[in-house]
Amino acid sequence: MPPYEDKGESRPIIGITMGDPSGIGAEVIVKALADHSLRERARFIVYGLHEQIAYAADAAELLPYWRRVPHEAALDTRGTVIVADFDEFSISPRAAKVASAEGGRASMRFLEEAMRDAWTGSIDALVTGPINKTAWQHAGYPYPGHTELLAQRFRSRRVTMMFVGGPLRVALASIHVPLFELRHAFTIGLVFQPIDLLNDALRDWFGIASPRIGVAGLNPHAGEEGRFGDEELRVIRPAVEMATNAGIRASGPYPADTLFWRAAQGEFDGVVAMYHDQALIPVKLLAFDRAINVTLGLPIIRTSVDHGTAYDIVGRNKAEPGSMKAAIKLAVDLARQRIAAKGGAGHDIRHLLPPDGEE
Amino acid sequence: MPPYEDKGESRPIIGITMGDPSGIGAEVIVKALADHSLRERARFIVYGLHEQIAYAADAAELLPYWRRVPHEAALDTRGTVIVADFDEFSISPRAAKVASAEGGRASMRFLEEAMRDAWTGSIDALVTGPINKTAWQHAGYPYPGHTELLAQRFRSRRVTMMFVGGPLRVALASIHVPLFELRHAFTIGLVFQPIDLLNDALRDWFGIASPRIGVAGLNPHAGEEGRFGDEELRVIRPAVEMATNAGIRASGPYPADTLFWRAAQGEFDGVVAMYHDQALIPVKLLAFDRAINVTLGLPIIRTSVDHGTAYDIVGRNKAEPGSMKAAIKLAVDLARQRIAAKGGAGHDIRHLLPPDGEE
Repeated sequence: MPPYEDKGESRPIIGITMGDPSGIGAEVIVKALADHSLRERARFIVYGLHEQIAYAADAAELLPYWRRVPHEAALDTRGTVIVADFDEFSISPRAAKVASAEGGRASMRFLEEAMRDAWTGSIDALVTGPINKTAWQHAGYPYPGHTELLAQRFRSRRVTMMFVGGPLRVALASIHVPLFELRHAFTIGLVFQPIDLLNDALRDWFGIASPRIGVAGLNPHAGEEGRFGDEELRVIRPAVEMATNAGIRASGPYPADTLFWRAAQGEFDGVVAMYHDQALIPVKLLAFDRAINVTLGLPIIRTSVDHGTAYDIVGRNKAEPGSMKAAIKLAVDLARQRIAAKGGAGHDIRHLLPPDGEE
Repeated sequence: MPPYEDKGESRPIIGITMGDPSGIGAEVIVKALADHSLRERARFIVYGLHEQIAYAADAAELLPYWRRVPHEAALDTRGTVIVADFDEFSISPRAAKVASAEGGRASMRFLEEAMRDAWTGSIDALVTGPINKTAWQHAGYPYPGHTELLAQRFRSRRVTMMFVGGPLRVALASIHVPLFELRHAFTIGLVFQPIDLLNDALRDWFGIASPRIGVAGLNPHAGEEGRFGDEELRVIRPAVEMATNAGIRASGPYPADTLFWRAAQGEFDGVVAMYHDQALIPVKLLAFDRAINVTLGLPIIRTSVDHGTAYDIVGRNKAEPGSMKAAIKLAVDLARQRIAAKGGAGHDIRHLLPPDGEE
């Protein structure tokens, strides 16, 4: 067991960004952290607007269980749940639920502060609430999403998405690429990278000494020895061989239609999928509202909800905190595992280049 | 309820072909039909080799519940399970389990006879056991599988595969096409056809008056309004509109990663998938050993097991009859529904062209 078990302040510290202040971020965070068992296992800093948190808690009839402090004081404050308030933003919880430049600026500020604290090792993991891409555009930030921003800030050249849902842990070789465009980018490196990153994550964060990784095919029946496509022979098999030569317990390519079933039965610790829907269809089928996004390839642990700002249901106490709760729980588990492996809390990533300055 | 309920000989007649005599066809058939409740709802003619049936029953310690007759006499014989024996083939159940020309010829003979009986309306549905493509090639038959042969014999220009598994009923816009090659064939007609055929099947065979059909997108997030690919806008949406203009209750394209979950929750009666793995990943995840293949577009009801000859386990009493049982059960249900809708047994498909002669 980790050395901080039941030692109060030596629990890992999880940073949670609220995301867009007009979205359901505050509501799902305040509902998720209302769970006592979660609060026993870590400390939490919520980067966002206190007014939104208080409003959502009121609507959900939750008594305050957090301490509000100005964000500058968050790291120096004791307590299990600290709301690091950015009161320079004045966005009413009753305001219209739309993508706005102010909302975009606010969600970026929360994130910048949290990234800095992750960078210095002041928090052990980062959980991100839903931002709105359009709001970011209005505010002048060109990033398509969290992942691209994090990759840039942490100077990570190789990042990919992993989804955790039910018994499945799936890393993606490609993400938001039009399906037929993928053929131009479908290289051995593209397939090797998620195998390698998934292996690292399963070993270092999930504590699996020698993870068994099943790699999916691209074509029907994984190409049936070239009869239904040659990408398995030309690209995927060489990538798997490259991985096994590097000591990774990878195998495949396997027909995708049985691979996920086999993984769900426990035959594999992780799966590498070739494209978005190949990964997300099985993950959402087995864990619709509890799917979590984990970024692989960063020097920090980062998990995320698998839903958007859901402007249409904000302020109506209707948001389900399942995905946020799962994302927080996984961040806690991964942080504890990582700390245990290192024999103590705190990260040492300062040998890496510093992040870019704020926008 | 259908008029033949509890009326003995007016139960529907289901033809079952054994498939390759060296495969697990005989074993899964004899195990599946051992279920009394199945035998109460229909009569069965098994087209194949009696020796294989008897051998498999012995190994499974099943007492004979069938009548063996020369295949010429099958239609004139009373009884619940008739084994129509083709004793011109002499293939020992103890012979090597490999793809052979003789095995290919035998499985084709069973099928030719069963297709003829389906044609004349002597059987109400056809269930096919697993054939071996290589054995067919050795015997000189150029068909890649049952579906192509049936389409040719029944002069059906528009056929497609549908898979039924757990709560899902999924028709495919494409089948055994290399994924990236699909772009050359990805037309409005390709997507409209399975919507239309699925609608017919759900209405006429499954008894759903106005089926709700959800159509999957091709790209991540169904293209997100063109951001991740334009096939949704150029091809799929026009196909859905064509269907709704024709009075079909189709909608979409929807992001595939949530569509199958929604269908599994009962929001849709059927789904149209764009490619093989998009359909088969969710079907196999929810119904691994009970998935059934149904051919849409034929004038006859045809269901099929979703596995191969499995030469490696033949003769060891290890084959699971789940898929065969599900295929038979569905054929019975569809035949009863079809007969009920027509107010009596028997098909009238003789206005169509006759099938080609035998090879």
